[in-house]
Amino acid sequence: MNLTSVFSIAEICAQHGIKEVILSPGSRCAPLTLAFVRHPAIQVRTISDERAAAFIALGMALTKRQPVVLVCTSGTATLNFAPAVAEAFYQQVPLLVFTADRPAEWIDQLDGQTIRQENVYGAHVKQSFSFPVDTQHPDVEWFAERLLSEAILAAQAYPAGPVQINVPLREPFYPPPGEEIKFKKNAKVIREIASSFSLTENQSLELQQNLKKFSRILLVAGQQAWQPELQAALQTFAQQTGAVIVADVISNQQSLPGVINHHDVFLNGKATANGTGLQPDLLITFGLSNISKNLKLFLRAFSPQQHWHLQPAGKVADPFQSLTQIIRVTPFNFFSGMASGHDAPHPTYQQQWATQETAAKNYLNQFLNQEIFNEFTVFKRMLDQLPLNCLLHVANSMAVRYANIIGLEPNKNIEVFANRGTSGIDGCTSTTVGSALSTNKLTVLITGDLAFFYDRNGLWHNYLPTNLRIIILNNHAGGIFRLIDGSKQQPELAEFFETHQPLEAKLTAQEFNLAYYRCENLQQLATSLTTFWTGGPGILEICTQSLENAAFFELYRKQSPFKK
Amino acid sequence: MNLTSVFSIAEICAQHGIKEVILSPGSRCAPLTLAFVRHPAIQVRTISDERAAAFIALGMALTKRQPVVLVCTSGTATLNFAPAVAEAFYQQVPLLVFTADRPAEWIDQLDGQTIRQENVYGAHVKQSFSFPVDTQHPDVEWFAERLLSEAILAAQAYPAGPVQINVPLREPFYPPPGEEIKFKKNAKVIREIASSFSLTENQSLELQQNLKKFSRILLVAGQQAWQPELQAALQTFAQQTGAVIVADVISNQQSLPGVINHHDVFLNGKATANGTGLQPDLLITFGLSNISKNLKLFLRAFSPQQHWHLQPAGKVADPFQSLTQIIRVTPFNFFSGMASGHDAPHPTYQQQWATQETAAKNYLNQFLNQEIFNEFTVFKRMLDQLPLNCLLHVANSMAVRYANIIGLEPNKNIEVFANRGTSGIDGCTSTTVGSALSTNKLTVLITGDLAFFYDRNGLWHNYLPTNLRIIILNNHAGGIFRLIDGSKQQPELAEFFETHQPLEAKLTAQEFNLAYYRCENLQQLATSLTTFWTGGPGILEICTQSLENAAFFELYRKQSPFKK
Repeated sequence: MNLTSVFSIAEICAQHGIKEVILSPGSRCAPLTLAFVRHPAIQVRTISDERAAAFIALGMALTKRQPVVLVCTSGTATLNFAPAVAEAFYQQVPLLVFTADRPAEWIDQLDGQTIRQENVYGAHVKQSFSFPVDTQHPDVEWFAERLLSEAILAAQAYPAGPVQINVPLREPFYPPPGEEIKFKKNAKVIREIASSFSLTENQSLELQQNLKKFSRILLVAGQQAWQPELQAALQTFAQQTGAVIVADVISNQQSLPGVINHHDVFLNGKATANGTGLQPDLLITFGLSNISKNLKLFLRAFSPQQHWHLQPAGKVADPFQSLTQIIRVTPFNFFSGMASGHDAPHPTYQQQWATQETAAKNYLNQFLNQEIFNEFTVFKRMLDQLPLNCLLHVANSMAVRYANIIGLEPNKNIEVFANRGTSGIDGCTSTTVGSALSTNKLTVLITGDLAFFYDRNGLWHNYLPTNLRIIILNNHAGGIFRLIDGSKQQPELAEFFETHQPLEAKLTAQEFNLAYYRCENLQQLATSLTTFWTGGPGILEICTQSLENAAFFELYRKQSPFKK
Repeated sequence: MNLTSVFSIAEICAQHGIKEVILSPGSRCAPLTLAFVRHPAIQVRTISDERAAAFIALGMALTKRQPVVLVCTSGTATLNFAPAVAEAFYQQVPLLVFTADRPAEWIDQLDGQTIRQENVYGAHVKQSFSFPVDTQHPDVEWFAERLLSEAILAAQAYPAGPVQINVPLREPFYPPPGEEIKFKKNAKVIREIASSFSLTENQSLELQQNLKKFSRILLVAGQQAWQPELQAALQTFAQQTGAVIVADVISNQQSLPGVINHHDVFLNGKATANGTGLQPDLLITFGLSNISKNLKLFLRAFSPQQHWHLQPAGKVADPFQSLTQIIRVTPFNFFSGMASGHDAPHPTYQQQWATQETAAKNYLNQFLNQEIFNEFTVFKRMLDQLPLNCLLHVANSMAVRYANIIGLEPNKNIEVFANRGTSGIDGCTSTTVGSALSTNKLTVLITGDLAFFYDRNGLWHNYLPTNLRIIILNNHAGGIFRLIDGSKQQPELAEFFETHQPLEAKLTAQEFNLAYYRCENLQQLATSLTTFWTGGPGILEICTQSLENAAFFELYRKQSPFKK
């Protein structure tokens, strides 16, 4: 063991521009703790529940768009990181996960907090590194320093994602009391100039020619961060080609002029009225997952002649079962200039979609603006009244679906986040907390009661940010099961699907010094909202009845002008 | 897909004698839910937080000494089971983990709750099985049914442990409303008659001869369940050979006459006074882990000539770095009759250890019975006053150490449990809840505040048992870091090791309808205890000061007659 090499971990991270560490304290990771805490360029926060800690790190990395370091001690601490690591893997978020370990000779020797940590995240990290134990030999010192750059670069290379660095450590873990840590300023650092993922001139020309063969062009944006420069390129492309842009709420395209956001309302799989009129000749997709099941069913039923997917690198999915062409380019590079020679925008395709979009919006407005109190109507009011320039997190499972049906108003400059890499309810609160810690903007979470109490430990630490606002739709159950076909017809619904839970959040608010507002009617909601946004960190709890919510959602389906 | 094959899972489990299922509800696992819920021989309980659910199942399996089924939906739900799965692996507890999944063709296609679930528990399950998707072909039906028996038998074969059965499922997940599930009563079941792990007559004779070559024989019992018949065999063996039996509190040997329980007080590594007098010629070990670090250091410093380890099968650890002989036998089979020809028990070896044991007990009694209120003195009073015939769970990390230092009174018929497979704090409450659900006896948890709030979701369900009693030693921090050398001398101690946390459990008790008692002095403790044991499910919170606890523990070390 050479503590100097462990201290170099912090130095090399800092030289790569890493500024934030989330630490779950323990004995075995003490050298890593001291290294990061004492490094002047790095801020460390401690979170005791590793599951929450990892989701908080995820929220920070998502919001700052920079890699974040996670540190934990040995044993099951590492496994509690796993849900957030998997989410980071599928949402392509760079996390550097340092897992302290015992040296190999002490594995499986009945010592405490010792498990088999190498590759503990299996297929859900980009790479798993083993830090050397004894670094006295100069070759090993070179290896240790090189490995760190490799790990940091791997986490950030497209597609970004989590990497594990397992760090076996022998005692002593601590320098003698009073001894200062000297960071090795000349530690080896390897840097990388990333590819721009652009097309050659010939490739561009050929694609431009191909593009002209298609008349009805549909763009579908998957989950992605807010990117104003991409929106400008998309807008030009759509104008020049007559293409339609369909975008779920998590694609952050709500401010794009003419964008289709209410497809989940008017699309209806094979039964979509006017389906063939909406059917694309060419489908172009970019970004990650889509929420709308109706969109998926529609595109699987009305397949395009060709489906191009834009993705700089990595494994490509085929969610609409129509993929024909992968193009290794960033969406921005693709859409910028691609339609410049396009001289025949489709005359009616945009209008056909726009007609449906308008009808859907009208139906939603008429249906949801009724003076009725349930989670669907309240959700509409919440979204309409979101302050400008905030960050919005929507939890799995019903919250993100409601948000996608209703959509956000354009031009409010709201960025939307959701853990749609794996769609778990396990870290929605923690992810929001991490996000709030990384911005001065108001950061709002809309969540159900199951997701909220599941991840209550996301609030259990000493860093609750003042810009945090949590809205809980509390129906005392996993209400989604009362809404979906199949489970709602089973006699086991209440006990084994919905799972009644009795908690409300008042005591939680009290425990964590959060303002608390409870609403069980529209008037209380209106009153609460005025102070909720401006009144410091708080929880607004909307208490509704699962049965009423289900009946109203059923009505939404029945009265829809778009149903079969 | 063939739902009938999925329903057969419940039938085959039932035919193998499995009675208990812990289910974390979800959509993808609906067919498994219906199968287990509707099977008349099986009881299903739903727990929303998968991490807690899995530890609850662990507690049930530990207490009933029977395999328990876990069911979860797809995605990160499976990863939240992982900490308890690892604990079950190292504590050798049979768990059957059914993880619902999408069929292979939908993996990595950006669908919700879809991750790479095959082998998701890596090296911490005995085996990972993939249930077939399409079971129409008779060979596949045979495979599906055979695979279940294989999994159930694998979980129980020595050493027992968790197995995963990944079950990919296609829609529809539900039978038509009103349709009854028919269980296939003649589903294929393979049974196994387990080895008795006994020695042949020749092996026994040879070992008996070898045994006579050693004079000072030391038995060290690792963690194991309460086994009265083994205690009888041990007692006879010790009488005939003059062997000494050293047993940590988690080895459940406290009622064995002459057993050494206070070795952690009087052993002191290399510096052990009279060390050579205590040094064994032959060390015989059995069971799983030991807690006492002083015992480990002593045995590594004073190595025996030979070290025999008794273990029927599986990988063998060498925690004292002295292992020379593995014997594939159960401890009961080994100790029964092994010493029958032994005619020269060591005349003084037991006495030498007993002298130390008595001195240690006297020191502890004198030191801890002072009228001072801190977690160490209170712990002594709690253990002394534990009711007869209860189950005692001690949490990691300080609780189990205090319990091991102080020891239990003999003949109170108390079985001790602790998650010492991996020594995590992540599931101590849940494990206790699972245990309490599986017995009519009073089930007591002694835990620290960090472990308690970490696993608060162990209480978040609709099955809180009336025999549950939780004692929280709340010092508002990970107090262990103020007690151990190294961290306690660092300036980062308070923020980055101890991690101050402000919560007390009063509101938690209120949320879950538990009686609540708060004590901050000895008088309150005395008053509370009288009603706590008899007053229904409850939390007794002992509020102490981390600084005072640390100072008192330091005093315990300084005043010890056994220190260097």
